[in-house]
Amino acid sequence: MNSVVKAIEWLGETVRFIDQTKLPSEEVYVETYDYRIIAEAICKLRIRGAPLIGVAAAYGVALAAIHSSTSCREKDLQSFSENIYRVLDELKSTRPTAVNLCWALERMKRVLNKSITIEQAKQSLVDEALKINHEDAAMCSKIGVNGAELVQHGNTILTHCNTGALATGGEGTAQSIITTAHQQGKSIKVFVDETRPLLQGARLTTWELMKYGIDVTLITDNTGAYLMQQKKIDMIMTGADRIAVNGDAANKIGTYNIAVLARFHRIPFYIAAPTSTIDLQIFSGENIPIEERHADEVTDGFGKRTAPENVKVYSPAFDITPSILITAIITDKQVYYPPYNFSR
Amino acid sequence: MNSVVKAIEWLGETVRFIDQTKLPSEEVYVETYDYRIIAEAICKLRIRGAPLIGVAAAYGVALAAIHSSTSCREKDLQSFSENIYRVLDELKSTRPTAVNLCWALERMKRVLNKSITIEQAKQSLVDEALKINHEDAAMCSKIGVNGAELVQHGNTILTHCNTGALATGGEGTAQSIITTAHQQGKSIKVFVDETRPLLQGARLTTWELMKYGIDVTLITDNTGAYLMQQKKIDMIMTGADRIAVNGDAANKIGTYNIAVLARFHRIPFYIAAPTSTIDLQIFSGENIPIEERHADEVTDGFGKRTAPENVKVYSPAFDITPSILITAIITDKQVYYPPYNFSR
Repeated sequence: MNSVVKAIEWLGETVRFIDQTKLPSEEVYVETYDYRIIAEAICKLRIRGAPLIGVAAAYGVALAAIHSSTSCREKDLQSFSENIYRVLDELKSTRPTAVNLCWALERMKRVLNKSITIEQAKQSLVDEALKINHEDAAMCSKIGVNGAELVQHGNTILTHCNTGALATGGEGTAQSIITTAHQQGKSIKVFVDETRPLLQGARLTTWELMKYGIDVTLITDNTGAYLMQQKKIDMIMTGADRIAVNGDAANKIGTYNIAVLARFHRIPFYIAAPTSTIDLQIFSGENIPIEERHADEVTDGFGKRTAPENVKVYSPAFDITPSILITAIITDKQVYYPPYNFSR
Repeated sequence: MNSVVKAIEWLGETVRFIDQTKLPSEEVYVETYDYRIIAEAICKLRIRGAPLIGVAAAYGVALAAIHSSTSCREKDLQSFSENIYRVLDELKSTRPTAVNLCWALERMKRVLNKSITIEQAKQSLVDEALKINHEDAAMCSKIGVNGAELVQHGNTILTHCNTGALATGGEGTAQSIITTAHQQGKSIKVFVDETRPLLQGARLTTWELMKYGIDVTLITDNTGAYLMQQKKIDMIMTGADRIAVNGDAANKIGTYNIAVLARFHRIPFYIAAPTSTIDLQIFSGENIPIEERHADEVTDGFGKRTAPENVKVYSPAFDITPSILITAIITDKQVYYPPYNFSR
């Protein structure tokens, strides 16, 4: 199954990515040889989605490696490596919550540390970045197949934020389940939370699902509860940015809200994520750092100032859903049911 | 206590109102002698908030009455009355959910039907509209005093949409409780849901509360659950557009969501509304009609297209909170606790 959109692509000497902040009005692609453009794109959410951030960061390191002679005058492997370490640090600092970023950069670092010559390091880093991307795409497909078994003909699914081809190196996570079920011929209907403040649901998820020809309806984040009250939602499928050993999951702000609503209305609440999202270093959700975003994403998000000047704003990018509210966690390996213990 | 803003005012021959769709960027006042401008303003949410709609509609009828010789050539009381009946129908059709609209128009109709001469009808209709406004202001003050008893020093309150001077003929409903508690010297903190799609919380409530010097923080509608999880919210105060005999309450979409969250987190959830909001004709919430709003309020709300062309949108303006989730209903008369039965 081919993605309807390629969020990021390695073109040999450069990386090409779609600027997601311009969607859905404009389909703008950026091609760059400069890892700093990648770092800035991750910071500014031009590239977003936990798995895609990992892939993009790895490509950033690969770009820095093959173009390092232009950005630093390395004399030997040590100075080359020191330069790449700085790049790794810079890329790591772009977003604090998604574990995939650290995970991908750790893989790149290990490859670098094993290299004996500069030329070998360059080749290995490019190969590793491509491998991370291909592995992610394969994981997405497996998540899709594993999760689609939970979707019945005629089901209506509520989803939050974007978990599609624009969020991953492949078909997506929660969205891969939706598109896989659709491609299996199951007649499904999808409600998409617009997902304030950055409207990834409105801008990205509806755009992707419409390309697949899936029956999709956009709602404000305020509307899901009312749909559940009317028994119009059969299940909830969302992604995760980091999952703790006990199954607590960090995901886009608003996810915890939906999980509470799902419990109240006795609707299954599923999290879908690749295994790389599980952080074996973190036992429970309270140890997951939560990024706070800038006020202007809330007050100036729609092209016009929509709140008074100097108003105080609190805008966490993520929240933590305790594992007790999660019906199952769907990964590329299998569907896990509670009690979760990923240390095993 | 004087309102920090006058949402609507009778100026003898004309009505002056603030165009709420322009706030908070611009403070634009409209002065008109034409009831059709009032009807259009209600339709387009330039004038909104259940109690204020009632006041505005009454003023609309008064305008039509005193300027009727220019809009129709009445020969006798009957043709004058028939013209006003048409105006009543036109104003009634502007918004379907708020009971205050029907209630105010019914009062105006009764006054008209009791009139013996055209001149007397004109005077009585103006007097009745002013009375509706003054009664509403008095009710707001009483709601404020009754509700403020539930607010303790140091409390943090979450509110939704706008229930202030911009929503009523006086100080507001839920917001009157907040401003009364503040003016009683209680140190309080308020989180305001931005309230999609039309952002009344972001645009109006923060603007009003900042004028009072209250500690106010704006959040997206996705963030309240996370605050409750962190035990940062002590109580929820919202308004209502219509309350059924059994206590079920229709209010801005997203209210039911918060009520479910409040129950899950064991936080008191209060509804504040004047007695005129209680509809003795309607036994339970399922009989309350729910207005559906246009898709473009979700997709093009504030100057920028934020969803794909032709995307399907579902945008109910209100939802119904079952009385079982409401800790108390605060009115101008008293604080009611469950089980509610307003028919008594």
